[in-house]
Amino acid sequence: MDRNSLLAVGSVALDSVKTARGRVERAVGGSAVFFSAAACNISSVVPIGVVGEDYPMDRLDGLKERGVDLTEIIQISGQSFFWSGEYSENFSSRETLVTELGVFEHFDPVIPAHLADSRCVFLGNIHPAIQSNVLKQMNMPQLVVCDTMNYWISQCKEELLDLLNRVDILMINDSEIRELTGESNLLIASRMVHSWGPEAVVVKKGEHGAVFFGTDWSFAIPGLLLDGVVDPTGAGDSFAGGFLGYLSSKEVFTRDHYRKAMVYGTVMGSFAVESFSIDKLETVSKESILKRVAELKDLTSFD
Amino acid sequence: MDRNSLLAVGSVALDSVKTARGRVERAVGGSAVFFSAAACNISSVVPIGVVGEDYPMDRLDGLKERGVDLTEIIQISGQSFFWSGEYSENFSSRETLVTELGVFEHFDPVIPAHLADSRCVFLGNIHPAIQSNVLKQMNMPQLVVCDTMNYWISQCKEELLDLLNRVDILMINDSEIRELTGESNLLIASRMVHSWGPEAVVVKKGEHGAVFFGTDWSFAIPGLLLDGVVDPTGAGDSFAGGFLGYLSSKEVFTRDHYRKAMVYGTVMGSFAVESFSIDKLETVSKESILKRVAELKDLTSFD
Repeated sequence: MDRNSLLAVGSVALDSVKTARGRVERAVGGSAVFFSAAACNISSVVPIGVVGEDYPMDRLDGLKERGVDLTEIIQISGQSFFWSGEYSENFSSRETLVTELGVFEHFDPVIPAHLADSRCVFLGNIHPAIQSNVLKQMNMPQLVVCDTMNYWISQCKEELLDLLNRVDILMINDSEIRELTGESNLLIASRMVHSWGPEAVVVKKGEHGAVFFGTDWSFAIPGLLLDGVVDPTGAGDSFAGGFLGYLSSKEVFTRDHYRKAMVYGTVMGSFAVESFSIDKLETVSKESILKRVAELKDLTSFD
Repeated sequence: MDRNSLLAVGSVALDSVKTARGRVERAVGGSAVFFSAAACNISSVVPIGVVGEDYPMDRLDGLKERGVDLTEIIQISGQSFFWSGEYSENFSSRETLVTELGVFEHFDPVIPAHLADSRCVFLGNIHPAIQSNVLKQMNMPQLVVCDTMNYWISQCKEELLDLLNRVDILMINDSEIRELTGESNLLIASRMVHSWGPEAVVVKKGEHGAVFFGTDWSFAIPGLLLDGVVDPTGAGDSFAGGFLGYLSSKEVFTRDHYRKAMVYGTVMGSFAVESFSIDKLETVSKESILKRVAELKDLTSFD
């Protein structure tokens, strides 16, 4: 039996979002959903998550059609994780209006035996102790990427550092790595993270792009220039989905593959923000993806 | 007689600067000085400016040795433009402590006949009416680049728009173009500027790099990853100096040349911030410059 390529553990949520371009009510979202919606355009992916009885599972049919294995999104008694937020006019800030954890509050997934030897693992933004529990159930994955957020950095730093010691790549926002390390210079901050375990750090900077910090090399990519941003929700998870989706399709992880993975992360993040929910990610064509990869090449190349 | 390649009009100042890495008192600075210190590493340049009797002209000897023609920096009776400022610990903001315009207050340069047909012109950040006066004295320059700042945008917008109608490239910070256009999306904002005259806009984003917006193509470059920033003063003018220094060394201005000019701008900006004043710019070797160009290539390339 083929070894499964990519496992993603994270939230499966309902999001009500308001932006300058419109609003959406109780749309499918969450880190595992955005990640999978991005990754499935490049690779096969199995998201692991939990939802309540209220979850409109049929709204994930589009992902199923794109090969996402939804059998590990477990539906149990209770309410689904619900988040509601509103972005400022220019998308530079957002206000959280409602967070109801629902069944997600006690999410502590059991990894089925047939998935324990997945090659690549994405640990979405959840409690670092839960991320560690997932990792303990895995059978020597080749590549583990974890996300986190300010809340865990301030509330569970010790557990986060314990986790970091066992992950390959930390994927994090620029403001978050500054908070995590207490260092404002990203190059110096990334060296601190390397000393804690991860061999690489991917720093996401929103419209300014992203930087891959290896221990002795780096790769920086600007954001695509977009004039039709609709909703930034899920951009970071979609970036991770493009990044890991690309890598999991490769036999080995070379520097050239990491570079190209950053490109696919950027491209999938750009599609994510051009619609509410996963609307664009789950309908985008292979041609559109390749076109945007070419655009990014043209945007950044010089001789 | 050869047509002079590059003319730069701007301030010639004395700067007292304090940063987390130290302080310097009454060091040479100003837009024309930083621009020339960067450009002279690539091309010949003639700065035009005015200073008072107190100006330590011998501190510009290093530039003269690198071929900068200092004959149009006129020394007159009075005090030199003096600026004093202090940067926050992480360089993210700065406070101006003192601004004494001195003889710069009535700066309205007369362009000598032998310089009126310079091919490339940099209009440093001064009153847009003075920038326009300079331009009126020029004999059909092939490339005019102007800088500006928030103060002129809010105080003299009409004169600034009048100027823009006659320049080829507006070079501006991201916060400034947002203020100028009232539009937060940089792609949309650049289109507004195009409609006012300039065929291109270069948006400088500090550590996040810079973007060249042509009317139907763009080029984005991330900042170099630096762990030894000493003083950000003059970074933007040094970027402009690298940018125009490179272009003025070319017979024609192709897209490939504009791309490479952005690279040289980024590289010269990176040297500028690694010392106080022009200390590094006026001592950097050709090898160090080429090495950093190669670093930028490695930082951004993918296949």
